[in-house]
Amino acid sequence: MKQPNIGFFTEENSIETVKSRHKDCDNPRLKKIMDVMIEKIHEAVKEIEPTQDEWMEAIKFLTAVGHKSDDWRQEYILLSDVMGVSMLVDAINNRKPEGASESTVLGPFHLADAPEREMGENICLDQKGSQVLVKGRVLDTEGTPIKDAKIDVWQANDDGFYDVQQKGIQPDFNLRGVFRTGEDGKYWFRAVKPVHYSIPDDGPVGDLTRALGRHAWRPAHLHYILSADGFETLVTHIFDPKDPYIESDAVFGVKASLLCEYQKINDPERAEELNFKNPFLISEHDFILVRKS
Amino acid sequence: MKQPNIGFFTEENSIETVKSRHKDCDNPRLKKIMDVMIEKIHEAVKEIEPTQDEWMEAIKFLTAVGHKSDDWRQEYILLSDVMGVSMLVDAINNRKPEGASESTVLGPFHLADAPEREMGENICLDQKGSQVLVKGRVLDTEGTPIKDAKIDVWQANDDGFYDVQQKGIQPDFNLRGVFRTGEDGKYWFRAVKPVHYSIPDDGPVGDLTRALGRHAWRPAHLHYILSADGFETLVTHIFDPKDPYIESDAVFGVKASLLCEYQKINDPERAEELNFKNPFLISEHDFILVRKS
Repeated sequence: MKQPNIGFFTEENSIETVKSRHKDCDNPRLKKIMDVMIEKIHEAVKEIEPTQDEWMEAIKFLTAVGHKSDDWRQEYILLSDVMGVSMLVDAINNRKPEGASESTVLGPFHLADAPEREMGENICLDQKGSQVLVKGRVLDTEGTPIKDAKIDVWQANDDGFYDVQQKGIQPDFNLRGVFRTGEDGKYWFRAVKPVHYSIPDDGPVGDLTRALGRHAWRPAHLHYILSADGFETLVTHIFDPKDPYIESDAVFGVKASLLCEYQKINDPERAEELNFKNPFLISEHDFILVRKS
Repeated sequence: MKQPNIGFFTEENSIETVKSRHKDCDNPRLKKIMDVMIEKIHEAVKEIEPTQDEWMEAIKFLTAVGHKSDDWRQEYILLSDVMGVSMLVDAINNRKPEGASESTVLGPFHLADAPEREMGENICLDQKGSQVLVKGRVLDTEGTPIKDAKIDVWQANDDGFYDVQQKGIQPDFNLRGVFRTGEDGKYWFRAVKPVHYSIPDDGPVGDLTRALGRHAWRPAHLHYILSADGFETLVTHIFDPKDPYIESDAVFGVKASLLCEYQKINDPERAEELNFKNPFLISEHDFILVRKS
């Protein structure tokens, strides 16, 4: 029979009751995180009012996302990505002053040991795709060139796959390179125009996004990590503004400031110097780094 | 350089941007669930402001909870349990009218095929623990006895383990039984006084609760499923009010109405009838079922 449920869990007191159990936690940060997670999850459950079957579906989904993850596939990061959580965490950790280049997500395909290359080198080792000269400057927020800035760039090939996704098919370190600026802060290298590609959609996250009526495409982009002594490291992409998925990136990575056009250049002499067919493409973008405070 | 980010994801518009992607979802219930989950998870991230390392810790934790789960162990249900989510879902799905017996969580140890037993039989097959006569009535909310009510009861043994956790150690179907009431709605059977036991704490959920300064104990209880034609099925426990963990059940299952004392009985003649040693225990509780509407 119903009695006043003093001291015990109820639908009404659920948040306070559960939080009170870790009131003596000696890790204040963990305590804060769990306080908020319990508040928000209980609020969600109270608003959704899941049936027992729906709750079990959620348990099975979360378990399947874990089971799909291994050393090569991280389905929980993918879930975080498609829910916009990865970009939100990125935004919170990379609030930049006016005028500075903006960040976006790192993604799973960076390699720490990509080769250092001479400025101007061609990072495309598989001879596929539309040839492009990528160039620009690395500057501080006052517009002064940054010397010895390190530019770590990587991209998918013309088939939409990174070298690490096609070991034995693509040459090792295809479409990757590390460049260092000189006194003038300038960078330039040869690459191919990136293409849009699908995030892995053969797991539970793909099933979820399909059920939600969402597509799995990421608009074409080059990845960058820019670093220099005394400056905050910048992890970002530069996107093709004409990509059909530019306004619907499956992982919400696009920002207006990260768009950069591909200009068609008709200049046989310059093409020959670059060992390109004429006409070719140029994509020019300046990166603005923030001095460490 | 920073530009108005029209149409793209920002820290400020993150919830609306992510939700807008599934605006054409043809499953309104899934759409509603994901709307709420995105709102609450983004609200949590904005309040917590996790570092990238903390985000990665969360990814690793969620993955580990998945990896710990298999056909025999469901670590995500355990996570739901210790966060009070299982009890909240149970509460939402089992709002009872005044006077009706209240529900609590099912737990993982129910067996669908426990043996039917004669009223009065002893469900304890391993001869351990304090002997107890469990008795009472099954009534409707007007106090009328319910005939042919099915009482499915199970409990841990005196060592704190269910038979299914100790296959080959405990007899099969130890401390389980299905009983049916007669005209008078009465039930009685012989069992042992339950003891408190620990939820499985050798996985990531155990690591979390320890880090939070929480214990893993569940106060002593008997599990019940009560069902009868024309009545809502009741899934519940009956707890020992004197258990040291009665106010701190690791999974928040206790309700004031689910407490039932163990009375010591000194009656050599009755003990002999029951094939008990004198003195022995009696625990008497009436269950009140709700007529289906």
